[in-house]
Amino acid sequence: MKIVKTILELQDARKELHGSVGFVPTMGALHNGHLSLIQKSLAQNDHTIVSVFVNPTQFLAGEDFEKYPKRTQADIKICELAGVDVLFMPTQEVMYSKIEPTLLAPAPKAYSLEGLARPGHFDGVLRVVLKLFNLSKPSRAYFGKKDAQQLYLIQNMVQSLFLNIEIIPCDIVREDDGLALSSRNVYLSEHERQEALLLSKSLKVASRAIMAKERDCERIKAEMRTSLKPLHVEYVEILNRDFDTIPTIELGNCIILVCAKVGTTRLIDNLWI
Amino acid sequence: MKIVKTILELQDARKELHGSVGFVPTMGALHNGHLSLIQKSLAQNDHTIVSVFVNPTQFLAGEDFEKYPKRTQADIKICELAGVDVLFMPTQEVMYSKIEPTLLAPAPKAYSLEGLARPGHFDGVLRVVLKLFNLSKPSRAYFGKKDAQQLYLIQNMVQSLFLNIEIIPCDIVREDDGLALSSRNVYLSEHERQEALLLSKSLKVASRAIMAKERDCERIKAEMRTSLKPLHVEYVEILNRDFDTIPTIELGNCIILVCAKVGTTRLIDNLWI
Repeated sequence: MKIVKTILELQDARKELHGSVGFVPTMGALHNGHLSLIQKSLAQNDHTIVSVFVNPTQFLAGEDFEKYPKRTQADIKICELAGVDVLFMPTQEVMYSKIEPTLLAPAPKAYSLEGLARPGHFDGVLRVVLKLFNLSKPSRAYFGKKDAQQLYLIQNMVQSLFLNIEIIPCDIVREDDGLALSSRNVYLSEHERQEALLLSKSLKVASRAIMAKERDCERIKAEMRTSLKPLHVEYVEILNRDFDTIPTIELGNCIILVCAKVGTTRLIDNLWI
Repeated sequence: MKIVKTILELQDARKELHGSVGFVPTMGALHNGHLSLIQKSLAQNDHTIVSVFVNPTQFLAGEDFEKYPKRTQADIKICELAGVDVLFMPTQEVMYSKIEPTLLAPAPKAYSLEGLARPGHFDGVLRVVLKLFNLSKPSRAYFGKKDAQQLYLIQNMVQSLFLNIEIIPCDIVREDDGLALSSRNVYLSEHERQEALLLSKSLKVASRAIMAKERDCERIKAEMRTSLKPLHVEYVEILNRDFDTIPTIELGNCIILVCAKVGTTRLIDNLWI
């Protein structure tokens, strides 16, 4: 595996890769969720590039940019053992210059839900992902469904900027007890770790209601809120795949999303049905 | 020559072009200035793509978007005779969708001079140029030095977004009497056409002063302003190639810019020394 840190090194390494290239952008602190993206890329492409970059422009002031978990040596090992071809680990100075254009994610869809709590977050996400796409020139790029709004906005960017990249949504990977994997789970105390299960449980409440033929989204959301009771719920929402709120469940075209604070840690989870 | 109007047609046509590809983005109403870019592209590349698209997002409310000169049949003929491989003539609906990210050109450099008179203009320019670059995937792209600020901002975008495209600046083409070619020159009455010569004359005043060893930019600009007297001058500026104002002439690293209104028509001109 080639570990590259500069633009030139990555461009040179990219030139050596012939055939299809899969790309997995990450912020490091890799867990089995990331590994599932990497494995999917390895299976679907001749070569795989992974990036590890904690992107400052997608953090708001006061967020956890400084303390975001870093596990560089473990990340390298995971990628190496998985069979990644190129691992890109740039610094801020490599990725950003003093004078450059920025991206504005489309309103209102980038300013609801995650974007309401974190205004500007998706501007930073699109900006860094566009740069990484331009560098890695992938045939396919892999994103987790866990960040459903990010996935929608990246698919929208790829279409509207005419990037010739296939975006592959990847299923959420969970602990045995249902907790969706997240690099931020390390912030949870043992007690909080238990409380955090309420998020995935609320999604089970929703899916049970739907299996019992409930189709009214307001009623489903109310049931979910009840089940989340002790937590500080930020949002519970049911959207279609175009990220529009819907009044009635449309099977095969729904995403049920939940966000809640467990202690000081914001957690998100969702279910595609 | 292939004339293509949709994204798919252009992508298919692009796939057929092997070797180096030159790209010349235009808003049509082609004149000898455009032709010089096209000829340079033809000489330097295996294939050349030209686009004709009057881009709505770079016009401000109240500007001449509606009445911008259109000469579709003449444009086709000019490209065909020149030997262009692919001519892309999309509609607004082809280029833009309802929900999409936008670009913000970097402040303050995109909000001085042209950007001061036309705030947001360069946001629209970068947005459409990025889309056109992604579609045409050129080895080289050709821009006139006449739009010096646009050229600077595009070079900046290409660098900071890591687009692997060589930007080729092309010299200003002038009428015999010195008037810089512009599609907007058709707006000038015969009397205004004469007055418009003051722009290129003011640049000659500057170059004569510099040849006479004048190095103080304020004094040169004052001389230029005097020579432009009857016109409504918007700006006279002397910058280095990084588009920073400079107090003293640096030979080989200067752009002298002028903008004035002749009647209701805003004209720009400049000189690289």
